Amino acid sequence: MRATCILLCFFTFLVASSAHPGKKKQYKPCKELVLYFHDIIYNGQNAANATSAIVAAPEGANLTILASQFHFGNIAVFDDPITLDNNLHSPPVGRAQGMYIYDTKNTFTAWLGFSFVLNSTDHHGTINFMGADPTTLKTRDISVVGGTGDFFMHRGIATIATDAYEGDVYFRLRVDIKFYECW
Amino acid sequence: MRATCILLCFFTFLVASSAHPGKKKQYKPCKELVLYFHDIIYNGQNAANATSAIVAAPEGANLTILASQFHFGNIAVFDDPITLDNNLHSPPVGRAQGMYIYDTKNTFTAWLGFSFVLNSTDHHGTINFMGADPTTLKTRDISVVGGTGDFFMHRGIATIATDAYEGDVYFRLRVDIKFYECW
Amino acid sequence: MRATCILLCFFTFLVASSAHPGKKKQYKPCKELVLYFHDIIYNGQNAANATSAIVAAPEGANLTILASQFHFGNIAVFDDPITLDNNLHSPPVGRAQGMYIYDTKNTFTAWLGFSFVLNSTDHHGTINFMGADPTTLKTRDISVVGGTGDFFMHRGIATIATDAYEGDVYFRLRVDIKFYECW
Repeated sequence: MRATCILLCFFTFLVASSAHPGKKKQYKPCKELVLYFHDIIYNGQNAANATSAIVAAPEGANLTILASQFHFGNIAVFDDPITLDNNLHSPPVGRAQGMYIYDTKNTFTAWLGFSFVLNSTDHHGTINFMGADPTTLKTRDISVVGGTGDFFMHRGIATIATDAYEGDVYFRLRVDIKFYECW
Repeated sequence: MRATCILLCFFTFLVASSAHPGKKKQYKPCKELVLYFHDIIYNGQNAANATSAIVAAPEGANLTILASQFHFGNIAVFDDPITLDNNLHSPPVGRAQGMYIYDTKNTFTAWLGFSFVLNSTDHHGTINFMGADPTTLKTRDISVVGGTGDFFMHRGIATIATDAYEGDVYFRLRVDIKFYECW
Repeated sequence: MRATCILLCFFTFLVASSAHPGKKKQYKPCKELVLYFHDIIYNGQNAANATSAIVAAPEGANLTILASQFHFGNIAVFDDPITLDNNLHSPPVGRAQGMYIYDTKNTFTAWLGFSFVLNSTDHHGTINFMGADPTTLKTRDISVVGGTGDFFMHRGIATIATDAYEGDVYFRLRVDIKFYECW
């Protein structure tokens, strides 16, 4: 019995301390997902294919051409297909829905608030994201602030990378989601 | 003393494991609140009663009529009364404040970012919400990403349901907030 | 050995219970930061200095004058310098980026969604904020819903105070960030 207790002690000690280890480098995700999403911006001529639209713009700009000054002040609303690989035409496993805001006048920087709504054989649930996106960097980290369904109460970090960019009409983001709280 | 230790072992084991049980079905909320909020959308003629307004719209739409294509691209800002029951005229216990974004072209889907600001005899504090709202489903889950005051550092899941809908002028949401992190 | 076990028991008990103490008053931040940020709103004449712009407005309002009715319906996008003290001209340690939404018709209330992007000798990483801001109160609490880099997975509460306000052109916020989950 004493041995059991010692084992239990040791086990609970491990569990308790693994919850708040001393150095961040030691953390290992409890779950990881890599997904892609594809954004086709409405430009006045691609209504059939567009998955996003400019809905707000600063004074003097309009809703079919991204604003000058690094698109500062544009808000775009999107409903983008999510795929398992980098092919726009792969079968979507869900939709990325929300908005991005271009928020800097002297470089490309966006602010993101959006959700992944996943509905496939592998995953069913939503993941909620928020954070700053300095788009000129190779990779950027944003926060996974919550989730539902398969991702109930999850938290983590998503590392996003611009996987393709075609003028002001199309971009594709690679999203490497690492959950550190999985429930 | 050994018995105490064993008890402590057992207790800490329970505490530690209850924090991350194996199946999500087992979780019980540490706190639960059911509230309603009421949204009256400005349509150009109801300025006195309206609690929300369209402030962004895609090209070709305007700010007094929700956009075609399932309102895709509309952003509405709201300051809606919160009540304990489904009666718009019940005494409000707080305000729901923030925005919703219609973000899909082929069905009704919104993205929500808002706060409950509660100020009643029972509750004093704020609750912050974010998530995808496929409004045609009977219930939808969004994330409770934080709180202040009585809801200091809380996290959880809010299950929302459209309790009433009157054309494009009024809707009422039932919000069943289950907190799983209560502090 | 038994003594060790008892010690371990006691220690793990302490760790487990400190994670969810009984009263919120007992919580001490694991990290604290006090920072200022400065917002200069574009008014049609200050393009060179402005750090924010109105990008959405209700019917009848425009993008260079904040809307009547307590600016209800205005969305502003910002990229504001962050400083260590209350001097606009101090060397910035990062940028506050995101949006604020005026969301009430009968008093000044905003809804905030933004990030601190810190890049100085002391701090490197981002902090993500969300919450209601009843700006007429001396202090307001919003949620810190996540972080990256030095603030990996952090959560907490930010207490904001309007440190200065000059007409509709400039305001400065003091942000006292208390992290309660530090990883």
